[in-house]
Amino acid sequence: MTDMSLAPSDRALVPFVSVANMLRLLNARGTESVLRDLARYIEEDYRRWPEFDKTPRIAAHSRDGVIELMPTADAEHYGFKYVNGHPRNMRHGYQTVTAFGVLASMATGYPLLLSEMTVLTALRTAATSGLVGRYLAPKGAEVMALIGCGAQCEFQALAFRALCGITRLRLYDIDPAATEKAARNLKGLGFEITICATAQSSVEGAQIITTCTADKQNATVLTDNMVGAGVHINAIGGDCPGKTELHADILRRSDIFVEYPPQTRIEGEIQQLPEDHPVIELWKVMRGEAPGRTADRQITLFDSVGFAIADFSALRFVLDAVKGTDMVEPLDLLADPDDPRDLFGMIARSAGQAA
Amino acid sequence: MTDMSLAPSDRALVPFVSVANMLRLLNARGTESVLRDLARYIEEDYRRWPEFDKTPRIAAHSRDGVIELMPTADAEHYGFKYVNGHPRNMRHGYQTVTAFGVLASMATGYPLLLSEMTVLTALRTAATSGLVGRYLAPKGAEVMALIGCGAQCEFQALAFRALCGITRLRLYDIDPAATEKAARNLKGLGFEITICATAQSSVEGAQIITTCTADKQNATVLTDNMVGAGVHINAIGGDCPGKTELHADILRRSDIFVEYPPQTRIEGEIQQLPEDHPVIELWKVMRGEAPGRTADRQITLFDSVGFAIADFSALRFVLDAVKGTDMVEPLDLLADPDDPRDLFGMIARSAGQAA
Repeated sequence: MTDMSLAPSDRALVPFVSVANMLRLLNARGTESVLRDLARYIEEDYRRWPEFDKTPRIAAHSRDGVIELMPTADAEHYGFKYVNGHPRNMRHGYQTVTAFGVLASMATGYPLLLSEMTVLTALRTAATSGLVGRYLAPKGAEVMALIGCGAQCEFQALAFRALCGITRLRLYDIDPAATEKAARNLKGLGFEITICATAQSSVEGAQIITTCTADKQNATVLTDNMVGAGVHINAIGGDCPGKTELHADILRRSDIFVEYPPQTRIEGEIQQLPEDHPVIELWKVMRGEAPGRTADRQITLFDSVGFAIADFSALRFVLDAVKGTDMVEPLDLLADPDDPRDLFGMIARSAGQAA
Repeated sequence: MTDMSLAPSDRALVPFVSVANMLRLLNARGTESVLRDLARYIEEDYRRWPEFDKTPRIAAHSRDGVIELMPTADAEHYGFKYVNGHPRNMRHGYQTVTAFGVLASMATGYPLLLSEMTVLTALRTAATSGLVGRYLAPKGAEVMALIGCGAQCEFQALAFRALCGITRLRLYDIDPAATEKAARNLKGLGFEITICATAQSSVEGAQIITTCTADKQNATVLTDNMVGAGVHINAIGGDCPGKTELHADILRRSDIFVEYPPQTRIEGEIQQLPEDHPVIELWKVMRGEAPGRTADRQITLFDSVGFAIADFSALRFVLDAVKGTDMVEPLDLLADPDDPRDLFGMIARSAGQAA
């Protein structure tokens, strides 16, 4: 027999968005449309950057990878993401990156949403890149080189089409099977695709160069001679101490744009440069308080590492997007006794219920 | 139609322990038995303290309360807890403290368990107090004063019976309704109960004094004259900057035992003392590397703030306890594409499935 008064109340139930429901949301709205919406939420939050409580992410490193917590908060909401990065996972059929996150009320501390974020992280990373591209890429850019055809690649392509008008892609991956996978997915989406034999050849004629490789080491995906005047570099993969993608000489020729300097100095491409090397904070560009692209021959570099505020924006988007739909399920995650001081009494009453 | 190959694989599903199942676990095993088991797991982890990656918890404070993340890791597992503390919540029928947590594999970064921790935090806090009492309380102690009859009170009583042999309780709360609630719950469990009109009278004849009040301020629940020679003080409620329960003079007469000094100096009773005031780390006592109680007239003080390692131990316990039972449900929290690099392909395939 079920005593309804002992069933969890609405207060005890946390709305949960599963992977299956995140995929339904994408299919219902269209991935490009979601990327555009995400970019809007992210831009809104970047423009009120000083309102946020910010901290570099908290990382636990091991031989195999890293697990990170990424919290941030404004006056109304608290958000955090759990995310791992384990490059060797792929060999055993696991994802390199998985993630989930929570948005909570600052007034009560109660979670308002628990969401898968493996797919959502890929989306918010791409949406951020596309948004930044809108401020920094050369006008009329149509061709993007995509170096690294892993899990992030197609999302980058779609975001740069949705937000910057890119239609032609030059793909390169060290593993031809990965390039084939990306080409197959992207052709189906109407992109004009060139498969390139080397990273060097992939950048020919590209106005935007996106690097999104996954090796946990100091690699040199781009050498100095590969980067011509006027391009925008969207450097995604260098996002961990000891993990970079660009030769330091490229950094010295570029204007470098970053999310949150205290974190990027530790994790980004600029970990190769002195602590005081000048960088430009993107939120200032988005508020019109710092210049973005100012000259045709300028090399702009987005040294992306991923910051908690974009995850916060993404969770805000999901909370709004699933409201009133069946794409969210109630999860019995919080204890909710009738008398909040009588947590102990719940145990005895639940025993009565089971009997 | 369901294409089984598109259903989430075992790798994508995270075992989830709901509040309802945590309550079932307690009723199936008995709360005192669980407290004893938890104390064993906690003691095991305290005895290998140097193996853990440790950090003070990461707090987001607001006018109404605090939201915290408490991560820790050893070579094999990573654990974190999300926990809030909002003293004003009670007025609106919400819990002061709610929590949930995750245990994950360091090798893959994949979560192994998502669990409710509102109930589990109450248990682990009490189990830690009882365990510490076993090292510090005077021999043959039978009487405990319990000041503060909120959500934590009954758990403390049970833990001190299970682990230290306490049978008689002297209860006081500023709100008589809270004292009545606790007395009702505890009489039913076979304790001999005295309801006290003041904090002062509650400590008469008690060998152990437990303070577990919830106000977010520097309060003086115990004044110096209330604490006689030889007692053990179990100070639970002072666990936040600006939130203490004991008069500083008591601290100066006591030997002070702490979980993790860098956190306790910020959050514990000792925030009232100079930075270099001597404290004894409990893990050293449990390893026999530092003395516990050494004299009959010694005042011992456990300045409890709650540290991530006890949550880690509690999650280890739950993972073991629910294994092979129906008290755990699979949660579709992680994306798991057939090809780990083809996250994007999942979206299109899931659309096919829905059609």
